[in-house]
Amino acid sequence: MAKYDEQYKELLNRCKEVNTIGSCAGLLGWDERTYMPRAGAASRATQISYLSGLAHEKFVDPRIGELLAELEQSPLVKEQFSDTAVNIREIRHDYDKSVKVPKELVEELSHTRTMAQGIWAEARKELNFPKFLPWLEKIIKLDLRLADCYGYKKDPYDALLDNYEPGATFETIGKVLADFRKDLVPIVAAIIDSPKKPNISIIERDYPVERQAMFGQSAAAAIGFDFSAGRLDITTHPFCSGIAPGDTRITTRYNPRHFGQAFFGILHETGHGIYDQGLKHEHWGAPLGDSVSLGIHESQSRMWENLVGRSRSFWRHFFPRAQQMFPEALQGVKFDDFYFAINDVRPSYIRVEADEVTYNVHIILRFEIEHAFLNGEVKPSELPGLWNEKFKQFFGITPRNDAEGCLQDVHWSMGYIGYFPTYTLGNLYSAQFFAKAKQDIKDLDEQFARGEFLQLKKWLNTNIHEHGKRYRAEKLVEVVTGKPLSHQPLIDYLKSKFGELYGI
Amino acid sequence: MAKYDEQYKELLNRCKEVNTIGSCAGLLGWDERTYMPRAGAASRATQISYLSGLAHEKFVDPRIGELLAELEQSPLVKEQFSDTAVNIREIRHDYDKSVKVPKELVEELSHTRTMAQGIWAEARKELNFPKFLPWLEKIIKLDLRLADCYGYKKDPYDALLDNYEPGATFETIGKVLADFRKDLVPIVAAIIDSPKKPNISIIERDYPVERQAMFGQSAAAAIGFDFSAGRLDITTHPFCSGIAPGDTRITTRYNPRHFGQAFFGILHETGHGIYDQGLKHEHWGAPLGDSVSLGIHESQSRMWENLVGRSRSFWRHFFPRAQQMFPEALQGVKFDDFYFAINDVRPSYIRVEADEVTYNVHIILRFEIEHAFLNGEVKPSELPGLWNEKFKQFFGITPRNDAEGCLQDVHWSMGYIGYFPTYTLGNLYSAQFFAKAKQDIKDLDEQFARGEFLQLKKWLNTNIHEHGKRYRAEKLVEVVTGKPLSHQPLIDYLKSKFGELYGI
Repeated sequence: MAKYDEQYKELLNRCKEVNTIGSCAGLLGWDERTYMPRAGAASRATQISYLSGLAHEKFVDPRIGELLAELEQSPLVKEQFSDTAVNIREIRHDYDKSVKVPKELVEELSHTRTMAQGIWAEARKELNFPKFLPWLEKIIKLDLRLADCYGYKKDPYDALLDNYEPGATFETIGKVLADFRKDLVPIVAAIIDSPKKPNISIIERDYPVERQAMFGQSAAAAIGFDFSAGRLDITTHPFCSGIAPGDTRITTRYNPRHFGQAFFGILHETGHGIYDQGLKHEHWGAPLGDSVSLGIHESQSRMWENLVGRSRSFWRHFFPRAQQMFPEALQGVKFDDFYFAINDVRPSYIRVEADEVTYNVHIILRFEIEHAFLNGEVKPSELPGLWNEKFKQFFGITPRNDAEGCLQDVHWSMGYIGYFPTYTLGNLYSAQFFAKAKQDIKDLDEQFARGEFLQLKKWLNTNIHEHGKRYRAEKLVEVVTGKPLSHQPLIDYLKSKFGELYGI
Repeated sequence: MAKYDEQYKELLNRCKEVNTIGSCAGLLGWDERTYMPRAGAASRATQISYLSGLAHEKFVDPRIGELLAELEQSPLVKEQFSDTAVNIREIRHDYDKSVKVPKELVEELSHTRTMAQGIWAEARKELNFPKFLPWLEKIIKLDLRLADCYGYKKDPYDALLDNYEPGATFETIGKVLADFRKDLVPIVAAIIDSPKKPNISIIERDYPVERQAMFGQSAAAAIGFDFSAGRLDITTHPFCSGIAPGDTRITTRYNPRHFGQAFFGILHETGHGIYDQGLKHEHWGAPLGDSVSLGIHESQSRMWENLVGRSRSFWRHFFPRAQQMFPEALQGVKFDDFYFAINDVRPSYIRVEADEVTYNVHIILRFEIEHAFLNGEVKPSELPGLWNEKFKQFFGITPRNDAEGCLQDVHWSMGYIGYFPTYTLGNLYSAQFFAKAKQDIKDLDEQFARGEFLQLKKWLNTNIHEHGKRYRAEKLVEVVTGKPLSHQPLIDYLKSKFGELYGI
């Protein structure tokens, strides 16, 4: 046993070393997007690529393979969900994926991504899909080679999806998403047809940036973000970066003529940040100190942004405070009108600007198309036509050009096939978790109305964050809610909330 | 030859790798002092110590020793000051120092420094020298062991001084500093005795911080700091960090009731920054792309801060602009009164608050004491008495306690014996360089008065910065000015400037 303990300790130390290197690269990446002077870009690329290469080199060290092989024969893996078994299982998962990809493919992917991203940006600007087409074809071919390296049972899509949502397969999540789509599209249609519309001009008034920053920061602190262990800065593309224990950084951008963009953006990134801050420090650097998946991460951001942050009870507390902070914009505005305005639903072309209902339709569209790409059911050249056809089918409108159609997102140019569904999985998880939290904490809405959010935060800490990667997402949903993932809680939530708002 | 070229290339690549790691640590260190959330301190310590350890490990790789041994037999070292010979010479210098210190001593020093620094801070606060004494004794013993590891010809002090001012010895600089002291002390005495005194209340009025920031930033840009390749931030202890090519960061702190602290601080750090920005990018990571020494670095900061920044001609341009920026404080103030106020000279207890004349006396006092420590001429326990005695001798006043006496500086608690003289060396170099620049550029003062500083900056780029470490400081002074280092240019400058101001 002493031998295994030694080996396990060595394995974790090696894993922590890799993560220490990664955390340095994390800070460099944060700085690149916040404060780095322009001319530092080339040096920064050298620094980050050096650290990434070093972390990879340390992680694919054959010694890690030896340790894993030994430990997988040991009593440490006996109990499936014990600390030791979980760490060994997840390090094995990542190790196998890392060693299976030959260096030559890693380099070709990295190079192609950089090139394709540049071409994509030009093609989008020039409304020139044919310019991007050869790169999209190349990316799909490389992603298929990547899937072959990883290996898969039925569907190459599964091998890539596993990078973002470990253990998920097209079969399992495809069914949930298809069922969800079936129930969702009629809701969207009903909302579009409803004569009731919010007065969104309320939130498109002057909201001075400094006061938005104060208000957003106070809300982030109120829901539980620890600013002694984190920061909020400004970037063009908001993000959350959990750099290391005690150091979680979120960003936003302010629009002086819009209340919601920064505010809900801050709640969203705060949700990610609270997850990162809720991971157990003593497990940092090992899978038990890491988040489950992109989908579970997104469930935390979406919960605070939408299920909490766009709820009536949340605004019972915050609306009077918003009126004090922004008297010019909000004096005399009725609560119900404000509440309706921040819950405006309408079809739109651009995913990142979509509301909480239609957002999922955007995702399902992409999910169906990228799966069809990988399985050869659709050729990349058919993308614009297929996109617009599906869009018309889902939303009743057709993009006027590819910039507001199939060229809007950066993901495919980066080779991130399998990434999109995690956004909607996040929404599905969040609704199912939130329904359970509401069962467990009877007076949650009353608490929110009093400005009390820490009991929900604690519930999330205990039930989700502190497990780290103990359970894969699919299992975690069952452990937390007692049921497998279902689209029903999200549909119920949307029907109830928007049914009332839109009188449907 | 091809073999040597290969070996030289490998040597530089290894050197660049070490410096890439160092540059990552540099950014982490900058962030630690600017934006890092409080709770991130422990993680940051882990990250930086990991990277430092890694850089050390890579640098003491025996392969570097092999390459050096081969290359030192090659034609690449034939021309003493050729690119190849210089890089090989300086890598050898640093390599030898690195491999000579056993890991056990490195660790003991590192640990003792951390402890001693904490104890020093407490002792200073409590005015409790005896509390610090055992740590000072330990530090001196460890520094002596360090000197023994490095080796030296005559004086253990030389081995440590070489860490900060490579190639300098007590014999060479001790003589210059002693001569300097002899001429300086009477000047200080005469200024103290002079009935003429500036009205310093002029610069101790309300100077709003935001406007100080704008004004300081515009001055930094005017003298040549490239803000597209650098930043200015706020920290408690101002510094300059040349992180990587294209990324040089300076900091300052603002006192809303003092004009000069931030402004001259910014000019000072800008001087360091201009040096870093002036190093040749193509040599980055090799000695030819690195600064000569702390003394030469300080010569650049001091030149812009004092010789330029406190000159009449500089303020011919900037004073009307300062009056516009700070009308409440400066309207109606006469040019000569302002100029005298920013050149106030008076004895003071605290080095970091001292003016450009008395500053050097503070340094010489420390230099004499620390040299006596190492040579056993003075026991650490005798420090407070000796300090106060010398202070009285130099300034005619006695510190009221050790916080404004021998406990004021952090350096000795960090083991930085040999560091202090580089401050005054910087002043001496700066005066000698500046005298030469004035010879080479006849109308320098007229240029300054017109707000033109870029010809001086270019002169510094060409004559000093772009050489990197081609010449050691001693040699560089000769190459640039045609003469060995002398205290005369600084004495001449001080006599002329302050003679006029104080009528002596």
